[in-house]
Amino acid sequence: MNQKRIVKPEAISGFAEYSPQVQLIAQKYLDRIRKIYELYGFTPIETPIVERLEVLLSKGGDTDKEMYTLKRLHAEEDEQERFGLHYDLTVPFARYVAQHFSVLSFPFKRYQIQDCWRGERPQEGRYRQFRQCDIDIVALDNLPLQFDADVPIIIMEVLSALGLSEVEFRISNRNVLNSYLKALGVERVQEATRLLDKLEKIGVQAVSEQLQQVGLNPKQVQGALAIAAIKCKDLSFEDRVKELGVQSEELDQALSDLKFVAEQCFKSSDAFVVDLSVTRGFDYYTGSVYEVRWLKYPELGSIAGGGRYDDLASTYINKNLPGVGMSVGFTRIFGKLVKDELLDLDRLVPTKVLIGRMDPENSEKAFDIAKILRGRGIPCEVYWQADKFKKQLQYANKKQIPFFVIDTDLEIKNLETGEQTGFDPETWEG
Amino acid sequence: MNQKRIVKPEAISGFAEYSPQVQLIAQKYLDRIRKIYELYGFTPIETPIVERLEVLLSKGGDTDKEMYTLKRLHAEEDEQERFGLHYDLTVPFARYVAQHFSVLSFPFKRYQIQDCWRGERPQEGRYRQFRQCDIDIVALDNLPLQFDADVPIIIMEVLSALGLSEVEFRISNRNVLNSYLKALGVERVQEATRLLDKLEKIGVQAVSEQLQQVGLNPKQVQGALAIAAIKCKDLSFEDRVKELGVQSEELDQALSDLKFVAEQCFKSSDAFVVDLSVTRGFDYYTGSVYEVRWLKYPELGSIAGGGRYDDLASTYINKNLPGVGMSVGFTRIFGKLVKDELLDLDRLVPTKVLIGRMDPENSEKAFDIAKILRGRGIPCEVYWQADKFKKQLQYANKKQIPFFVIDTDLEIKNLETGEQTGFDPETWEG
Repeated sequence: MNQKRIVKPEAISGFAEYSPQVQLIAQKYLDRIRKIYELYGFTPIETPIVERLEVLLSKGGDTDKEMYTLKRLHAEEDEQERFGLHYDLTVPFARYVAQHFSVLSFPFKRYQIQDCWRGERPQEGRYRQFRQCDIDIVALDNLPLQFDADVPIIIMEVLSALGLSEVEFRISNRNVLNSYLKALGVERVQEATRLLDKLEKIGVQAVSEQLQQVGLNPKQVQGALAIAAIKCKDLSFEDRVKELGVQSEELDQALSDLKFVAEQCFKSSDAFVVDLSVTRGFDYYTGSVYEVRWLKYPELGSIAGGGRYDDLASTYINKNLPGVGMSVGFTRIFGKLVKDELLDLDRLVPTKVLIGRMDPENSEKAFDIAKILRGRGIPCEVYWQADKFKKQLQYANKKQIPFFVIDTDLEIKNLETGEQTGFDPETWEG
Repeated sequence: MNQKRIVKPEAISGFAEYSPQVQLIAQKYLDRIRKIYELYGFTPIETPIVERLEVLLSKGGDTDKEMYTLKRLHAEEDEQERFGLHYDLTVPFARYVAQHFSVLSFPFKRYQIQDCWRGERPQEGRYRQFRQCDIDIVALDNLPLQFDADVPIIIMEVLSALGLSEVEFRISNRNVLNSYLKALGVERVQEATRLLDKLEKIGVQAVSEQLQQVGLNPKQVQGALAIAAIKCKDLSFEDRVKELGVQSEELDQALSDLKFVAEQCFKSSDAFVVDLSVTRGFDYYTGSVYEVRWLKYPELGSIAGGGRYDDLASTYINKNLPGVGMSVGFTRIFGKLVKDELLDLDRLVPTKVLIGRMDPENSEKAFDIAKILRGRGIPCEVYWQADKFKKQLQYANKKQIPFFVIDTDLEIKNLETGEQTGFDPETWEG
């Protein structure tokens, strides 16, 4: 062996990497998510990890500070970085829809499960590489309201499939707050809603002061705080808003839309709650908004979120493309499950049956058994040589392979219970 | 809508991106590969897209020229790039095994399906981002020869599952060529084998000249060319080598090892061929070598390859870790299937049934039907509102959804054949 300097193999902070045992579960969870998305008719897309910088920067905002660019290790001196890693799946999706517009059929329902990257300082629940599981439904010109109800219901099904309990799935419609503030005579509505979104973070006192700073009079502040405090697990929000004594056609429409969505959500899971303070910060949401908290772990912030937007892709194409979508923060959720040891680490390998070999002359039979089992979708391994029974059993135990069968035998042994039964590879069910 | 500058949405050369219809097939193919790997007991691992530069560079070679590094868009002036995108899955795997050594159980069988990146000039079959599907079996101290037969057989099963025909799966054992040349008195064996590996590329004449340049006398050149010309679809290679009149214990062992592997390969598929000129360039292969050509598309070069190595991870850990593995170039293969329109683009969406809605009062029933179908694993969509029959049918046709059922009805319509039959969501089989 050559003399080599030893390079220490270490984790890179902000980039999660799991043991094989944990990775098996991650895979299982991701499969469940995909399966649910497909059961609802969403089609997968995948985009490269990079986008042109002009695409990534066209959204504006402050994400550019955390963006990674690609640079060749031996780049020429004047070589400019032209590509950056995507920091979410919305920007690549918008570019994708514009670019492939002619082959898409609308309403277009896509799911996208991919990593994203942000060069921020890692901390609990914050990663530099993190997997997002997004769905969006994008229509040409008109997007039926039904989709605003479908999306959160599907996402809640996903969270249940991951085994998450104590989830609070907050829904609202931005227009309720907006039109209410407008009807109340507030001028800087956008700034006011953005402040109300911070209620949980900075408290009533601070929000109240800052609302005055953006020009709300005491009555308006009181009204804003009153509507933002409305939170309920039934349809009473409509009456409660009306009791505040403000009215407009726009407000009525927004309340009716939210009612349409909330009614279906409430029917599908008791995790849902209407919370009129939710606005999801970003200005591009224009109707329904969703935000999910994991009540056990408030420090994680939002584990899934999204909403309706009027304009997906006008940066790239002269088409009117409204949509509604949500994103699930898989790495954030899964990282917590790993850290708090909430995973059921039942398996070390996919293998269900180890086929042992006693007689070197008789190996054919072992391979035949394996072939039959694999043909039936049952993962198995053939021990790599004829050997002592004990050694082969040791291997099965070490790998937590649950069943053991011997080529010369027609019996199968359950290694957990010790039970031994007759075995026919064509019919065995495990 | 705001006035915006239009950013042109364009493909980035060297980064593949597919339409949803093609992506659905890519997904299906990748699932098949995963499934096969798991049926043979391989466990998945995933590593971050980046490794420390010292890890990526420790392998040496000329890959560093094509390596991408990550740089924050607003990096400080003196901020050094410390991470690079991995250019294969072997380097990350070696680092992974060393880093997680204490929780791994050997022989460790892993699969890894991930993208890799190289900053090279894109051309047909060459991508800057490309997906590799790797398997490796790594043992502590001793690696049984059986695994050298398992790996190519599994990979051939994968290639068949992708529907590839006219595949030539070349196998050899580097020690056959090495020990033969040594017994022939050749001094610069490594250089000679590297030249023989180029036979197909540059021809007998050029190789012959270059062999002389590295010090082989005419008799040695003749012998080298004679053994490298041995190619057969049966076990005759052993006799043919022996007929060349050179002998050594090492050569006998190498031939016996190759025979052990070849015998099993031949039994499993007629794509296999023993080709003694194959050495796979890289110096770290030390025994079995594999290289797969797609005969229809020689310009693609190798579509899968690998071999046995003695030393996976001594750069990182003071352990003796021999292994054997192969890598399938998924993007290269799939790209060709797309380009030559060899895919069976049967579906536009995963949806199998569209549940139409006629009566606004009766929507519950549509959702109930959907729930039952989804519970049975059948992807379906509910039309988003009660509407004219014709409009709903149009949507189903546009999306190529094969079956259509109406909430108020207990009939299902096959949209391809026009056939209409009774429908019970609990038992319908499609």
